[in-house]
Amino acid sequence: MIENDRFLRACRREPVDYTPVWMMRQAGRYMAEYRALREKHTLIELCKTPELALQVTLQPLRLGMDAAILFADILLPLEPMGAPFEFAKGEGPVIHKPVRSKADVDALRVIEPHEGLGYVLEAIKLIKKEIKIPLIGFAGAPFTLASYLVEGGKSKAFETTKKMMYGEPEVWSTLMGKLAEVVRRYLHAQIDAGADAVQLFDSWVGNLDVDDYREFVQPHVSGILKDIEKRGVPVIHFGTSTHHLLEVQREAGGTVLGLDWRTPIEEGWKRVGHDRAIQGNLDPTVLFAPREVAVKHAKRVLDAAGNRPGHIFNLGHGILPGTPVETVQAVVEAVHEHSRR
Amino acid sequence: MIENDRFLRACRREPVDYTPVWMMRQAGRYMAEYRALREKHTLIELCKTPELALQVTLQPLRLGMDAAILFADILLPLEPMGAPFEFAKGEGPVIHKPVRSKADVDALRVIEPHEGLGYVLEAIKLIKKEIKIPLIGFAGAPFTLASYLVEGGKSKAFETTKKMMYGEPEVWSTLMGKLAEVVRRYLHAQIDAGADAVQLFDSWVGNLDVDDYREFVQPHVSGILKDIEKRGVPVIHFGTSTHHLLEVQREAGGTVLGLDWRTPIEEGWKRVGHDRAIQGNLDPTVLFAPREVAVKHAKRVLDAAGNRPGHIFNLGHGILPGTPVETVQAVVEAVHEHSRR
Repeated sequence: MIENDRFLRACRREPVDYTPVWMMRQAGRYMAEYRALREKHTLIELCKTPELALQVTLQPLRLGMDAAILFADILLPLEPMGAPFEFAKGEGPVIHKPVRSKADVDALRVIEPHEGLGYVLEAIKLIKKEIKIPLIGFAGAPFTLASYLVEGGKSKAFETTKKMMYGEPEVWSTLMGKLAEVVRRYLHAQIDAGADAVQLFDSWVGNLDVDDYREFVQPHVSGILKDIEKRGVPVIHFGTSTHHLLEVQREAGGTVLGLDWRTPIEEGWKRVGHDRAIQGNLDPTVLFAPREVAVKHAKRVLDAAGNRPGHIFNLGHGILPGTPVETVQAVVEAVHEHSRR
Repeated sequence: MIENDRFLRACRREPVDYTPVWMMRQAGRYMAEYRALREKHTLIELCKTPELALQVTLQPLRLGMDAAILFADILLPLEPMGAPFEFAKGEGPVIHKPVRSKADVDALRVIEPHEGLGYVLEAIKLIKKEIKIPLIGFAGAPFTLASYLVEGGKSKAFETTKKMMYGEPEVWSTLMGKLAEVVRRYLHAQIDAGADAVQLFDSWVGNLDVDDYREFVQPHVSGILKDIEKRGVPVIHFGTSTHHLLEVQREAGGTVLGLDWRTPIEEGWKRVGHDRAIQGNLDPTVLFAPREVAVKHAKRVLDAAGNRPGHIFNLGHGILPGTPVETVQAVVEAVHEHSRR
């Protein structure tokens, strides 16, 4: 039973008595409880063991968050699709066999979520029994997932990804289509399991220009978002460095659009339209500043959003390791207090 | 003697018979001649030996570039300032003792360029004897240099840098002031030695929002740019991911504003104003596409600039290692041909 539905009300642009807040990566390395668990388990073990994923998901809720987000990783679907990976120490994810040719793409399986992702759905069911705030499910968006698959891991310039995109547009389209279908099914399954909202992470799409976004990404993202929205469940459409893409992201869809700190909220909300909710947009590095400075910045974000219904307070990107927990807590409290209607 | 002054004419928005082109990192790892030299010398040796810097600077000119850019590294001034560094294999620069406290900042020396950077000035003199196209000198901008100094190397989120910026604004201001003064002197010295234009690389400033740019960066950048411009020498003001900053970068100054591929040229030029020249903005990853696709994209950039006087063709960021030389050459030729008035 949801007792605090401010997050869901804000997604639907309904009035709330104060602005709800959650933070991307709110469960993570900045928390001592999380680091303690990580000493005993790998990241993948935490994701694949529903009882542990539950435990990690609950950890940050003591800080006063108005929504929980499922503890998982955007890359999880790649393994059952046929592209196993590991998290190499200090290097991020490594895809053992990058996907670079038509044959590689053809070999990827368009799975049903119960084939190889059942543990995520199980975790959702466990979490839902424990919390009285909404639970956010999530998935990586096709471009962001494709970039890991093609590059074989993280990338700065995405040259191998774009080599396929520009040079073999049909192979690219098949790859994006397969990823989009898996993501669509995966998000539906998360909602079936109990997720109250979902977020689509297109974290790296800000590297593309508008024309490329329209041609190579938008149809795939739009297919997912518009299909999920039909269920009446809020969908948050998130990216970073997308200041130049807000209009085409809006076209692609989303109940809520994520704005990172590079976009002033007033401008961003106007550009995505006041018929959408927005989420954001404190710079996560501000949490390294003295507490009173961080709180001042958080208030500035709230003032810029102007208590208009439909703002979910969040960071512009995930909480960074090393962030002081007390500052996170102080910001959450300040958001609740300063935004009280 | 400069025989081809199209680059300088374009900086001044004078008519040219075709659009001049050069590419950031046009001397670099994508060229076999460069890799051959690097087998015998470290990057720093190439920078510090004027005869070798000359040799590397000349290498890409056979591809038809309309300007040469001095071979050097933006970090070179840090060593004589008191912050020695090395390029660790595969890791990028490592500053041995990061600058994080007031005492660290106070210890930095505001050098004159002949103290420890004489080899750069010597290289400029050698290069000027050999070329008949303009020579571009350059320096890193204060924020970008400060980020390396404070983080101790490359960074994704700049959290340590911003911790100082937000938490100790006076220390930050002293650091930026010292860097700005060194850069100002260094660019003057490069011009004295023969550089025909200079570029200020604020490569990472796009991570800041407009308010922080105005408060923590703009006064320092503006001081450099406006002082150099008084000499009548063109200054290129360059950044990446600055779609949200174009107006404040314009205010800060620059004869030419750099636009990366995320900003459509028509929009970008309008925002920085048609009283400035622009440089850009082909996505460097496009050079990994089949040659005809790369050429098509280059033509699209030219068409968007519309042969208005004041466009210098370039990439949106540096040429990436692994870029096929033949594609670079094909794009240079296509720019000259397609833009011919």
